[in-house]
Amino acid sequence: MTSKKQSADDIHPIGVFDPKRTPPPAFVDRVPAFLNGSETPRGFLEKCLERIGALEPAVAAFAHLDVDAARAEADASTARYAANRPLSPIDGCPVGVKDIIETADMPTQMNSPIFDHWQSNRDAACVFALRHGGAVVPGKTVTTEFATGASGPTRNPYDLARTPGGSSSGSAAATAASMVPVALGTQTAGSIVRPAAYCGVYGYKPTHAALNIGGIHPLSLSHDTLGTIAGTMADAWAIAHYIASVVGGTPPHPGLDGPAALPDARKPETLVRLCTDGWRAVDDPMRQDFETTLDRIAASGVRILDRGNSRTVADLESLLEDVDEIARTISAYERRWPFAEYAKRHPGQLSAMAQERLDAALAMTRGEFLDALARQSEIRAQVDAIADIADGFVTLTAAGPAPLGLENTGNRSFQIFWTLTAAPCITLPRLAVDGMPVGLQVLGFRDRDADMMAVARWLDDFCLS
Amino acid sequence: MTSKKQSADDIHPIGVFDPKRTPPPAFVDRVPAFLNGSETPRGFLEKCLERIGALEPAVAAFAHLDVDAARAEADASTARYAANRPLSPIDGCPVGVKDIIETADMPTQMNSPIFDHWQSNRDAACVFALRHGGAVVPGKTVTTEFATGASGPTRNPYDLARTPGGSSSGSAAATAASMVPVALGTQTAGSIVRPAAYCGVYGYKPTHAALNIGGIHPLSLSHDTLGTIAGTMADAWAIAHYIASVVGGTPPHPGLDGPAALPDARKPETLVRLCTDGWRAVDDPMRQDFETTLDRIAASGVRILDRGNSRTVADLESLLEDVDEIARTISAYERRWPFAEYAKRHPGQLSAMAQERLDAALAMTRGEFLDALARQSEIRAQVDAIADIADGFVTLTAAGPAPLGLENTGNRSFQIFWTLTAAPCITLPRLAVDGMPVGLQVLGFRDRDADMMAVARWLDDFCLS
Repeated sequence: MTSKKQSADDIHPIGVFDPKRTPPPAFVDRVPAFLNGSETPRGFLEKCLERIGALEPAVAAFAHLDVDAARAEADASTARYAANRPLSPIDGCPVGVKDIIETADMPTQMNSPIFDHWQSNRDAACVFALRHGGAVVPGKTVTTEFATGASGPTRNPYDLARTPGGSSSGSAAATAASMVPVALGTQTAGSIVRPAAYCGVYGYKPTHAALNIGGIHPLSLSHDTLGTIAGTMADAWAIAHYIASVVGGTPPHPGLDGPAALPDARKPETLVRLCTDGWRAVDDPMRQDFETTLDRIAASGVRILDRGNSRTVADLESLLEDVDEIARTISAYERRWPFAEYAKRHPGQLSAMAQERLDAALAMTRGEFLDALARQSEIRAQVDAIADIADGFVTLTAAGPAPLGLENTGNRSFQIFWTLTAAPCITLPRLAVDGMPVGLQVLGFRDRDADMMAVARWLDDFCLS
Repeated sequence: MTSKKQSADDIHPIGVFDPKRTPPPAFVDRVPAFLNGSETPRGFLEKCLERIGALEPAVAAFAHLDVDAARAEADASTARYAANRPLSPIDGCPVGVKDIIETADMPTQMNSPIFDHWQSNRDAACVFALRHGGAVVPGKTVTTEFATGASGPTRNPYDLARTPGGSSSGSAAATAASMVPVALGTQTAGSIVRPAAYCGVYGYKPTHAALNIGGIHPLSLSHDTLGTIAGTMADAWAIAHYIASVVGGTPPHPGLDGPAALPDARKPETLVRLCTDGWRAVDDPMRQDFETTLDRIAASGVRILDRGNSRTVADLESLLEDVDEIARTISAYERRWPFAEYAKRHPGQLSAMAQERLDAALAMTRGEFLDALARQSEIRAQVDAIADIADGFVTLTAAGPAPLGLENTGNRSFQIFWTLTAAPCITLPRLAVDGMPVGLQVLGFRDRDADMMAVARWLDDFCLS
């Protein structure tokens, strides 16, 4: 096995994905060691930098790195723990920052020549919050062009011939390769949970607006959502919660609510097994893996609702049939600015993909937009109706593992519908096909993120058992 | 009179305010002349530049001017009219742009050393829209620091010893001095209608989010509103409407609705005379001027509701008693970012006023914020209830004329309550005290801006009659 892994290093630098693996200790669980001096944030950072040194040439997760600044930040954190005065529960935590998020000390380049070497004049709200709490920002992670267009150079660390998914490509790949314990991502369609699923890590998309998006390049304000991608649920939650505790949500949302540390696991009474259009593209082994997991969950005593035994679920699934068109309309219409501005002032510098989406947006009417918003409201109301009868939903995060090639970051059909609901979701790295990760997706209810996390934690533990 | 005016030029460069004056022709009403060649946008711009040349040294309305670029834009517009192919109903219109609004070709400095010479990488949504329609942007108008803090150098053109009001100080002063026919302003408390009233021009604050605020420095997203300050109602409306037609509202608001040109005047059946806390500071001559106007309106057959004859109005006025505290809480809480970020990275570079507001914000709790939002919702619901029984509201725009001195841009007590409702309002330059302008404020209902304009137009004509 060792010799085989050695020889496959060229394309599988972090080996074969094991859905049963126990995650490494979360960063936030190392705090006692930092406080008693048996570990230090600087030492932890050095391990991350070693991984970056070894894997970044192949994986290309970062658009920009500032190792010296990160070491200085980690040293300052180390000193705070030594003095028994950490700034926060995330003091010293290295966090990758997606490159559509403004940083005062590093360029923010959106993976577009239009923002080549562009320097913001400030830290985005989330970055300000992280630094306020003593977190370390080693660099900016690769995004697709403006989180919507052409893909970047990042490769999937489980198979360099495959996409890491997008648009939070670098955040997912860096986390999977243990270059950082956690990174910031954004989701407007499927950009947090899809790459997290393809890279075998946790991807948490909070309730829309629950984390302040100030200083993040806009795409579609109705859907743009800041979240976390992490090697552990504990870090995914702790970082998100801490950001909200400092800068709140996108006004007027007051910000993610709940405990600072990951909620305890809670066994759900009832889960909805959500079957949407995307399932038509799921092949038999993948479907079988999911079914087996669901059967085990049901056998443990969790009641499973689906369209067959719940009219409310059937009604939601009917409404969700149009979700792709609704989402495309809203997302396109809302991005006319700034993209029309960029196209005019920088002719030829948007990718063909971004230009096509802009052209479609400019052809849309106010009436089409209003109609899409009305249908979105219907869907949201139907989801709310299910809150009375279930603890959450389970489905796949994607139809299968990451596709081959870097150009196509994968299909959004398993992610877009929940972005549209504005409700939270999380992908758990608990399914696999042929050594590549696939995500089990848990969907919750709007502004009940902590409840969803508790259920997801139970499911995650259950999958390991 | 002439000799007196001559000798007073030093402090009254545009003379004494006459509330009965007929406004100059609107820019949009000059289009036939542009099309038949009897006037040209370049010729119109030159008249503006003459006014700027003569008055800018005393008034200081602009933070930045680019005369060469403006002339080139006006020449291009002139050529389009000559070819009978104007880009829009506002082609060639010179528009001042408040200096918290991003412009790709001019610095955006927020009247703060933190943004000294700062260059955005794009035009804000509204500026993109203006240029899309062929408008001319001669320069950036002075704002108070970040539209909230220390005042700028701008003086009131009716009396250089007085404030022009704030925060859209330069936009109001430049419009009053006929340096531009119209300018963009923003209002988070009273920043459009107060300076417009103090400078004797029209100030239109649309329904919240009805004009896209993309690319405008954020203060409080729940209240930040883009609008227009103009010498005529026709230009105030046409520019606002055109912006919305190109870039819509702040997503998901679809954008200001209604006709492209100012709606026809409509005599209201019923108006509410709104009496709020601010009235306690109104002195007798001011009050008398307002009462006389109201009596005339009533005598013309318009029914006037007030707390004495309408329980619904009395209930609204009771709710509005707390409005200042509610607004302060929401506005402060929502600005923690970016101001805490600026304060940390640029110690000592926020003014004492901006720093104080930030300190207050950082001391607030999530609970206080949520409570303020709930009370705001109550107020909004009560305003909606009045939509069934009246065509709009009238009140003063400020307790009196512009105060002496430049440091204090005036009291917000007559503006803040309507910003909180998210509904539209407009100030009409139809009242005066001792040769200084005071505004008659007309308040409408949310997303019924065109209706409000029709009523305001009738009132404006009536005041002239």
